[in-house]
Amino acid sequence: MRFDLQLSLEVLRRTPGTLLALLSDLDERWIRATEGPETFSAFDVVGHLIDGEETDWIPRARIILARGPNPAFEPYDRFRHRDRNAHRSLTSLLEQFGRLRAENLGLLGSWQLTDADLELLGAHPGLGRVTLRQLLAAWVVHDLGHLAQVTRVMAKQYREAIGPWAPYLPVVTDRPVPRSYR
Amino acid sequence: MRFDLQLSLEVLRRTPGTLLALLSDLDERWIRATEGPETFSAFDVVGHLIDGEETDWIPRARIILARGPNPAFEPYDRFRHRDRNAHRSLTSLLEQFGRLRAENLGLLGSWQLTDADLELLGAHPGLGRVTLRQLLAAWVVHDLGHLAQVTRVMAKQYREAIGPWAPYLPVVTDRPVPRSYR
Repeated sequence: MRFDLQLSLEVLRRTPGTLLALLSDLDERWIRATEGPETFSAFDVVGHLIDGEETDWIPRARIILARGPNPAFEPYDRFRHRDRNAHRSLTSLLEQFGRLRAENLGLLGSWQLTDADLELLGAHPGLGRVTLRQLLAAWVVHDLGHLAQVTRVMAKQYREAIGPWAPYLPVVTDRPVPRSYR
Repeated sequence: MRFDLQLSLEVLRRTPGTLLALLSDLDERWIRATEGPETFSAFDVVGHLIDGEETDWIPRARIILARGPNPAFEPYDRFRHRDRNAHRSLTSLLEQFGRLRAENLGLLGSWQLTDADLELLGAHPGLGRVTLRQLLAAWVVHDLGHLAQVTRVMAKQYREAIGPWAPYLPVVTDRPVPRSYR
């Protein structure tokens, strides 16, 4: 599928409501469960998505759109959320994520991006030259990947409970060693 | 995590609303996209979940609870939804799934299952002897696995659009050959 801004916005707009429907008032045992040491729980994912709204996608789009001589992105801190959210509730994080996402999509809409804008380049600290179009596509995939992660992590908690069903429900054996935090 | 009926109900209750938040009024290009031939789109998944409500989880629980001499489950038809939903809208399927799920969870609650009930056995056509507890745990994991699938399938549609980001967003390379329909 080719990148399309309206198609992308359709997904980006739905992520806060999807997380709210899935996680709101859910028992802590589901919310705090992980796939093992150094992997994200559902709670961690929502904190990480908040960090993305504040420090990743829109800030990087701004750097590209500033058209400066050196459109280098700041490195992204994947651990920022851990300390700052230690005493927060998931309800409060979900509310904050929804608010930040709505603000950021309002801003994105106000830019009225053209095809030429979408071809503008930024410099990613690990990936090198990337276009604004690729950045926005990555934002969509990042959302969907973390939704897949949250549901996979929850499913894995019942790996023993399903007994003989495991071969029929491959989600419980997905990524025996998780590949990445992101 | 050990099986817990209330924890399980928390997840089973949330699935229709989660799918509604994610998929309602979404463009057909997202809804109909698959991971390749003979794999499920988001539309297919909702149809498959309806089939599960009508022919799988609760009907099998009833067979177990009937305590007959031969608690054999009917084989499950993974293709049932294809023809019967060919001319339906996703909105109508989402509504039907929500209604069936609510009815089935009402029924499940009305049974007031004891630990002894959860140890009762059924005979699965492929897996052999399974307990009611394992059947209910599998229902939860089946929901979560299909939510992970829907978001993964959508994410993969932007595999080209994200350009150099692919190594940082492993969801687009998950399951190059999908392991199963289910």
